[in-house]
Amino acid sequence: MRKLLNQPFAAVDERLAGVLRADGDAVELTEGWRGLVLRVRSPRRRVAVVTGGGSGHEPAFFGQLGPGFADGVAVGNVFAAPSSRPVVEVVRRMAPPDGALFVYGNYEGDVMNFGLAAELLADAGIPTETVLVTDDVASGAEPSERRGVAGGLVVVKAAGAAADEGGSLADVAAAAREANARTRSIGVGLAPCTLQTAAEPTFTLAEDEMDVGMGVHGEAGIRRAPRASSAEVAAQLVELLLADRPPAGDPVQVLVNTLGSTTLMEAYVLLGRIVPELEQRGVAVARALAGEYITSLEMAGLSVTLTALGGDLARHLAAPGALLAGPPWRSAA
Amino acid sequence: MRKLLNQPFAAVDERLAGVLRADGDAVELTEGWRGLVLRVRSPRRRVAVVTGGGSGHEPAFFGQLGPGFADGVAVGNVFAAPSSRPVVEVVRRMAPPDGALFVYGNYEGDVMNFGLAAELLADAGIPTETVLVTDDVASGAEPSERRGVAGGLVVVKAAGAAADEGGSLADVAAAAREANARTRSIGVGLAPCTLQTAAEPTFTLAEDEMDVGMGVHGEAGIRRAPRASSAEVAAQLVELLLADRPPAGDPVQVLVNTLGSTTLMEAYVLLGRIVPELEQRGVAVARALAGEYITSLEMAGLSVTLTALGGDLARHLAAPGALLAGPPWRSAA
Repeated sequence: MRKLLNQPFAAVDERLAGVLRADGDAVELTEGWRGLVLRVRSPRRRVAVVTGGGSGHEPAFFGQLGPGFADGVAVGNVFAAPSSRPVVEVVRRMAPPDGALFVYGNYEGDVMNFGLAAELLADAGIPTETVLVTDDVASGAEPSERRGVAGGLVVVKAAGAAADEGGSLADVAAAAREANARTRSIGVGLAPCTLQTAAEPTFTLAEDEMDVGMGVHGEAGIRRAPRASSAEVAAQLVELLLADRPPAGDPVQVLVNTLGSTTLMEAYVLLGRIVPELEQRGVAVARALAGEYITSLEMAGLSVTLTALGGDLARHLAAPGALLAGPPWRSAA
Repeated sequence: MRKLLNQPFAAVDERLAGVLRADGDAVELTEGWRGLVLRVRSPRRRVAVVTGGGSGHEPAFFGQLGPGFADGVAVGNVFAAPSSRPVVEVVRRMAPPDGALFVYGNYEGDVMNFGLAAELLADAGIPTETVLVTDDVASGAEPSERRGVAGGLVVVKAAGAAADEGGSLADVAAAAREANARTRSIGVGLAPCTLQTAAEPTFTLAEDEMDVGMGVHGEAGIRRAPRASSAEVAAQLVELLLADRPPAGDPVQVLVNTLGSTTLMEAYVLLGRIVPELEQRGVAVARALAGEYITSLEMAGLSVTLTALGGDLARHLAAPGALLAGPPWRSAA
């Protein structure tokens, strides 16, 4: 474990202190604990867009703050859900006139704590809606069983754009639901990470092996196999994504995400193979993004996220916006 | 070596193909080989700002393209200088009315090939100026002996801003020279990388050891020492940076850069320690940035870059701009 930290259990709060050093002009901590809100929010937004989740996925989730994206975020320990308190506090601090939309990955702890926050806010007269991100096709047959991975950024972007158009809570939730319904991801794991508070890596994987379908906390995927070339992996991942739900004639956005220790070079090489694999199957690629959007500490691996554009979603994903941290999300369609 | 690639020697060109898939609306390859230029360049720029260097440092150097930054970039093999040909081609393609400024790190191969390109362009009647980036204080006593590391981005930003103000070739070169003169960096290495074309890591370092002053190709630093805490490393690095040249009352910009497999969490934790170390020594911090701006494949480590603001430089670094790839560079001062 070659990390440069101080007291391991202090790392998450020290990270937040560093974020305030870098971006204290743009974001502020809520009173209490581990909630961040944008200092300047769009006056057209009647609905706050709130996301969050465990730490260790940097630049997610605090990096998803920014104009056109989320207004507020709640942060948990490494690979652990935030408590309900920062969720409540970010919403109360923003006091959005039409309430808040929660967008987060479908994990038990997040569901429990965001759910509790929704109840507490309802008691205080603040309405909320929730859209669970369920883009990981390797994690279950039914969307309700599926975990959220890199597709969460797509859902946050759609919600942010709908909110920036002055949409109601129902409108913003509908935009987010549509984005999630049209988004599918799958990952491939190459090497584990080690939590700063643990003695052992999160899992073991032989040097020449890969885990097809691995989740962003190292959850086992569909199969382990000898490590293949980028071209072969591209073909396998496209096959699995399109088998799940073909995009029905819509052009797609492709997002290639790298985990912590996989290089941007590998992301672009994979992207260069994914696009022709899609085109050969009659799927047109309208936008492509590559970078380290959501990580798992220093785990090695990549994921591919396809979003079938069409309807309002193409407009929402092309709307202006800027992420607080992480690679650019360009607005051009 | 847990990489996902195809034929190892094809990785650099496959990477460029992927960049065109993602960003072909923003950049184009020059004819021939490994030069990239922005499709839309500021009409106010009379001088092209050209950077470049070896691959393996992604998002550098192609990521330094963008409005407010570089117009053109030339790319070499992994950890190897670009040849003179793409340098010449990017300049000829842009045909800047007042010539081109070259900004690149002080490495022998880059000096030779950019130098040859400058001669070829002079023969064609296109003037150039060169500013070598020499920010790495661990790499020599005299600036002329020093290598360029993360400070190159600061120099490119200053040059881009001066060019956007309509500056002459002399003006743009002066802005870049001033940025380089006011910028100092130092790194700490925690683990090596392995080139995709090699069987062994670039160097060895025990699990509990660190290399203070390591360069971005794994060049040995000032000393090897047992791995310390982030707080201790922050104190050591600030000491070394300020010993080299105190910023003489100017406020500073701090940029914390992570190499490929070091997490953004560690970058923010280190930043949170660097800032008070500076403040305790009477150095005010005006801006702070953290992220993966220049890497060494999957090497682990971080670097800290201080730039003493003042004069035109504060304005140049705060000017609008957007990087093609890599973390945001916010414009607010």
